Amino acid sequence: MGTVVTLSGQVGGAKLADGLYRLRGADLAVIVNTGDDFEHLGLAFSPDVDTVLYTLAGIASREAGWQPADETQALYGMLTALGGPDRPMLGDKSLAACLLRAEGRRDDRSLTDLTLQFCRNLGIAARVLPMSNDQVRTYVDTADGAVTFPEYFNALACEPEVKGFQYVGAEDARVSDEVLDALHANDLEAVVIGPANPYHSIRPILEIGGMKQLLRKRGAPVVAVTPIVGAKALTGSAGKMMRELGREVSARSAAMEYYKLIDGFVIDAVDEDQADGILASGIEVLIAQTVMRTADDRVALAQTVLDFARAIREHKVREGESA
Amino acid sequence: MGTVVTLSGQVGGAKLADGLYRLRGADLAVIVNTGDDFEHLGLAFSPDVDTVLYTLAGIASREAGWQPADETQALYGMLTALGGPDRPMLGDKSLAACLLRAEGRRDDRSLTDLTLQFCRNLGIAARVLPMSNDQVRTYVDTADGAVTFPEYFNALACEPEVKGFQYVGAEDARVSDEVLDALHANDLEAVVIGPANPYHSIRPILEIGGMKQLLRKRGAPVVAVTPIVGAKALTGSAGKMMRELGREVSARSAAMEYYKLIDGFVIDAVDEDQADGILASGIEVLIAQTVMRTADDRVALAQTVLDFARAIREHKVREGESA
Repeated sequence: MGTVVTLSGQVGGAKLADGLYRLRGADLAVIVNTGDDFEHLGLAFSPDVDTVLYTLAGIASREAGWQPADETQALYGMLTALGGPDRPMLGDKSLAACLLRAEGRRDDRSLTDLTLQFCRNLGIAARVLPMSNDQVRTYVDTADGAVTFPEYFNALACEPEVKGFQYVGAEDARVSDEVLDALHANDLEAVVIGPANPYHSIRPILEIGGMKQLLRKRGAPVVAVTPIVGAKALTGSAGKMMRELGREVSARSAAMEYYKLIDGFVIDAVDEDQADGILASGIEVLIAQTVMRTADDRVALAQTVLDFARAIREHKVREGESA
Repeated sequence: MGTVVTLSGQVGGAKLADGLYRLRGADLAVIVNTGDDFEHLGLAFSPDVDTVLYTLAGIASREAGWQPADETQALYGMLTALGGPDRPMLGDKSLAACLLRAEGRRDDRSLTDLTLQFCRNLGIAARVLPMSNDQVRTYVDTADGAVTFPEYFNALACEPEVKGFQYVGAEDARVSDEVLDALHANDLEAVVIGPANPYHSIRPILEIGGMKQLLRKRGAPVVAVTPIVGAKALTGSAGKMMRELGREVSARSAAMEYYKLIDGFVIDAVDEDQADGILASGIEVLIAQTVMRTADDRVALAQTVLDFARAIREHKVREGESA
């Protein structure tokens, strides 16, 4: 068994990362989107990084996976009582990482360094790696102009029609040394793109300068898990965005977002009819149970995905031998 | 009835301020020590200002008056879990003011402006006024050098022997316009120095450039309430500091800290034997019940102090007439 890299955004991606972590422990690296990061009241929010941390540490809320369990809102309650901004804020526990991250950034510590400190302290053996130490900000183009993703998500409640996306800073951002090491590992066994929104969770990672080339030059297969099940996004707004961008809302559409980048795509059993269309694009397909309700579901899907990657690798080796 | 100004530090001073507030409402201004202010993790802590705010708003903890009631420690718990500094920190509610204050300071808003915003939002009709908008920091001289007061109080638990105090920045700090207005009010009836540590609560206020002159030129009597009862400081470390500075630990000693600045001094009934010594220094003395256990105690002491100030004023008028 080798090492595994997974690309993750929020909850769905974090759940699959957790399944992979339970199978592989220290042999897992999770590359996490930071395009949704933002600053507020001097705190440094990294929603996707923290979701992955809480999930792998086993302290995430079951109902609201982006925050620790039993979260409270005492600070925010007093903040509004004092006349502070009434913009919703994370709970008391969640603010700790944002406070330490802001302090670390003021001391010129990298986002990666800080995240690995959090991993060590939370007892996470895997490496949780922000996609870059440089700032990338995802903007949503709407009829009224471009807004940052957190603004689109929170203040606008994802309502305005999506015209497109911009990943500001991505082209000039550098892949961190730790991400390079993970993708260059000699024993890299698979790269897994988690079931996350393609537009604001995975694309920001892929748009980092040199990232696609790194993935294409890989020795290991790249497989993605569908974020669309039965023509609906499992969580979040992927389906709505797909429709507004003029794409068919389907697992096949989701696969096409990673065209020429992935070797295999995992679709849900309910979308079996999508398989042929995806295969026709030269992408191998696996049909599986992709909805993760329990911890066992996470591990089962992770194992399925790793088995799929192994099959693709063996398949490629046979193709190589017969060529 | 005119307006009243009181000088306050932490809990004792805040309790008397609360008694005065219940009597006088919007006709009260509280000038608060900011020499103990400090920064930590990018947050701006103003312990004395916040104590007064919580007390006047009626939301202070009964047992720990420097913080709101029912305080929780969720943020700090997660902070240490993430490997943050294990230096003790305020609770979740208490951090809200520190966060807003830090944000306001970054936006170049004055400490006074921010504090008055908090007053309005907490429904406090009185004006809570930081002693200055300029930075003043109280240092404690010890055998091992000078340390900031928060460091002396928290990290060193007030243990090292006190050799002296420094009020760094006080001489060059400007009395704020709002403090000037309060002390220049035509209808100013009394200035009340609360029962607070003379060295680190009241002296920093008095050391602000021009403050003593402002008080001496007043039209209204200045009366102080003893922080020492029965040769002990009611709360905190005033007695210990007094002894280490080579002074007798007594109400008379406390009165002498304000020599030539006050017209009257309120001592506790248990210290009746101190009265003559204080009178001999030309300071009028009132013997009263100074320990405030209940809200009624606060109001009763406040009324006693205001009556004492009126008596001094009338006494002076008679002296003036007979001269």
